[in-house]
Amino acid sequence: MSPDRLSITFSALADPTRRAILARLVSGEASVTELAEPFVMSLPAVSKHLKVLERAGLIKRSREAQWRPCALEAGPLKDAADWLEHYRHFWEESLDRLDDYLGELETQEQRHGCKD
Amino acid sequence: MSPDRLSITFSALADPTRRAILARLVSGEASVTELAEPFVMSLPAVSKHLKVLERAGLIKRSREAQWRPCALEAGPLKDAADWLEHYRHFWEESLDRLDDYLGELETQEQRHGCKD
Repeated sequence: MSPDRLSITFSALADPTRRAILARLVSGEASVTELAEPFVMSLPAVSKHLKVLERAGLIKRSREAQWRPCALEAGPLKDAADWLEHYRHFWEESLDRLDDYLGELETQEQRHGCKD
Repeated sequence: MSPDRLSITFSALADPTRRAILARLVSGEASVTELAEPFVMSLPAVSKHLKVLERAGLIKRSREAQWRPCALEAGPLKDAADWLEHYRHFWEESLDRLDDYLGELETQEQRHGCKD
């Protein structure tokens, strides 16, 4: 079974180097050498990560310029964000419950403070 | 190197069965048997997926009830959504460019229509 698009996207994002490469591309396109600079990693290792990102449609490599710069492609990130959006009410509820609990603790402490 | 939290989360989400299990848990906690029902998959295979989700902190299994129901834990999903949020302006820009392009096409077609 060939993996679905969303699985390919999440799998590509499941690596700190690949996420750092995407973060770097936010400030504009870059060559492989430029992308490799911050990492203690061989160029072939970085190239391998770029291939994973390219296959996931998260980056695009220009065919025109000789240095073939990489650019960010945000479409798959939008699909991933759309999927996560369905769960937003869950984490917002958890944060509300935590707020309620902290509020209760504070009230109890204030009451305790008055008795002393 | 032990993988970071975000990589563990994205890796756990990179599977359609695991995402379907999380989607099922939106409507409330469920036993392993209940979670396995929609899948053409053995119970041990489903259990394996649940272990991945549990290790990623995406589900919690009750220690109290004998049937040990699974419940959704949305914290890691929030962290993943927060990470993706940094790229929102990128996909919104792409959609704006597409809108502009479609608008241009429409104008051109209208002009063409007037000439005929």
